[in-house]
Amino acid sequence: MNKGTVLFSDNAFLELNTFLENRKNTISKIFILTDTNTFKFCLPPFLEKMPNLSEYELIEIEPGEENKNIETIIGIWDTLTDLGADRKSLLLNLGGGVLTDMGGFVASTFKRGMDFINIPTTLLSMVDASTGGKTGIDLGMLKNQIGVFSLPEMVLVSSEFLSTLEARQLRSGLAEMLKHGLIADKKHWDNLKNMEDLDITDLDTLIKQSVQVKINVVTQDPTEKGLRKILNFGHTIGHAVETFYMNTDKMLFHGEAIAIGMIAEAHLSTLETGLDLNDAIDIKNTILEYFPKTKIDRKDFDAILDLMKHDKKNISGVVNFSLLDNIGSCKFDCKANTNDIENALEFYMA
Amino acid sequence: MNKGTVLFSDNAFLELNTFLENRKNTISKIFILTDTNTFKFCLPPFLEKMPNLSEYELIEIEPGEENKNIETIIGIWDTLTDLGADRKSLLLNLGGGVLTDMGGFVASTFKRGMDFINIPTTLLSMVDASTGGKTGIDLGMLKNQIGVFSLPEMVLVSSEFLSTLEARQLRSGLAEMLKHGLIADKKHWDNLKNMEDLDITDLDTLIKQSVQVKINVVTQDPTEKGLRKILNFGHTIGHAVETFYMNTDKMLFHGEAIAIGMIAEAHLSTLETGLDLNDAIDIKNTILEYFPKTKIDRKDFDAILDLMKHDKKNISGVVNFSLLDNIGSCKFDCKANTNDIENALEFYMA
Repeated sequence: MNKGTVLFSDNAFLELNTFLENRKNTISKIFILTDTNTFKFCLPPFLEKMPNLSEYELIEIEPGEENKNIETIIGIWDTLTDLGADRKSLLLNLGGGVLTDMGGFVASTFKRGMDFINIPTTLLSMVDASTGGKTGIDLGMLKNQIGVFSLPEMVLVSSEFLSTLEARQLRSGLAEMLKHGLIADKKHWDNLKNMEDLDITDLDTLIKQSVQVKINVVTQDPTEKGLRKILNFGHTIGHAVETFYMNTDKMLFHGEAIAIGMIAEAHLSTLETGLDLNDAIDIKNTILEYFPKTKIDRKDFDAILDLMKHDKKNISGVVNFSLLDNIGSCKFDCKANTNDIENALEFYMA
Repeated sequence: MNKGTVLFSDNAFLELNTFLENRKNTISKIFILTDTNTFKFCLPPFLEKMPNLSEYELIEIEPGEENKNIETIIGIWDTLTDLGADRKSLLLNLGGGVLTDMGGFVASTFKRGMDFINIPTTLLSMVDASTGGKTGIDLGMLKNQIGVFSLPEMVLVSSEFLSTLEARQLRSGLAEMLKHGLIADKKHWDNLKNMEDLDITDLDTLIKQSVQVKINVVTQDPTEKGLRKILNFGHTIGHAVETFYMNTDKMLFHGEAIAIGMIAEAHLSTLETGLDLNDAIDIKNTILEYFPKTKIDRKDFDAILDLMKHDKKNISGVVNFSLLDNIGSCKFDCKANTNDIENALEFYMA
């Protein structure tokens, strides 16, 4: 099986059982990384499906983006050391995007690299964070400022974990699915638009479609030299907004921030890459059906713009965007001036 | 030019000048990482040879293994952030092994990877640390516990920096050169044995030979799945001894610790892999010509053995050695029991 292979539903657990059986003489020790939520809600059903996983060590961390930092990483490095982890150990990351991003970074840097497997438990991490080999942590206020590209041995996607999520978390994942449709698959966008409402029993096929878009993109450009940048649609403005409200009472989930970013950047796309204004309005209306509007104060625009200047995607300080020319088609390395970015935020608020 | 290419002497600086000229439109910003010593002694002669390096930012760190930790790394990440580094920036690491190991780790993890170039300024880093793609930091007392494999764009080896080194530092590098001879090149070992004394004016050819041994090994096995482990000859016991005396008044330079490790592991080689005892004695006498004996207290053996149990090279807690079967030939994945390891330390002390 190639590194990074994504497996779905019960088949996924069967494959992991086989993987563990086949490697039982070469894997020195198995570690399961959970947070306090996934420990409680996801670990029991996971273990039930894993008869070949009898011996393991548990490592538990605090959940949430506010803990996605080097201090948490140092804690995990220390724990792995104390528990005798070595280069032939295996780390199973059971959690959302914050956890799989951190677990991947820990595994890739511990003793210069041990194997890891991602078992995403949120919709967001299933369709986005857990696949594609990006690992990382935040540095101060800057999201994913530190990290490496490193593929998991496999990714197990099972929608049964979704039953434990609250509606706001489900919606957060939907934002990235909508993005996948917008940047590369109009049919997927239409399917999502025509969905009656967000119900996990109907999601399996849509999740597979969405993961497929991401895989298609990242296999063509694993380290984001070009094409992969289209996955950043909505993320330049979205990341800045997410960072701006972090640790405030208006704190946004990642997908909620990206929803804002996609609406604003759809408008920017009409200015820079020729997206039809009607399409931008369609995008805005469709997204707002799921995501209630966040009131962004005009006096905060400067601070939000300032955050964009620190975006990882920038080259030589010029803010870099991925923008749509049509629904289902995206350009990368687009520039926009401050005035247009402010207009895009106004479009979101209008 | 392939990543990781090693260039020698003045040709090296010419190549770097050309590299900078060719990439002047794609490199967004150049950073030079120095420590307080290399800032003073190595930066001026380096800049003199680099007419095409006119704009750069300097980052200065404290020298020494005691600063090879995550706190220093966080400081560099923060500084790069403040100075506007991005993925198209280039980091020039001007220093010894501690600095090139840390600079490589910083560059490989900053925004998931920016390019870096190593310009080793000590004999040790020329013949060892700066080539081969290992980057890393210590975690607590454990050497290089954290890191990634990542190749520099190029490595510039120029013996002119060696004139600023004190004798003890030069000797430290000699240990790794002797190791290269012992594990893979008997002729190189003989050349080093026949050297009148350690004089930098005669070192150019010997340095090239030594680097060539390392390159031959690491290109066959970049991520140390097998063969590359032979470079760890002397390092299992050597690292433990180095760690044991760290931050004490008997603190050893890396090469001094490896010198002890090689003598002890030469004896272990007679027990485990059939090295002739006369060869072990020859190794001991040759090494002791350069490295005065360190008195290791027998009551400290247990603590030193305990440190070996945390060695990165271990699998499932079994201490792993690379041992000689002949001078110029080395086996990896060798085991040894506690008693034999103690005997090996006794052999060193005898």
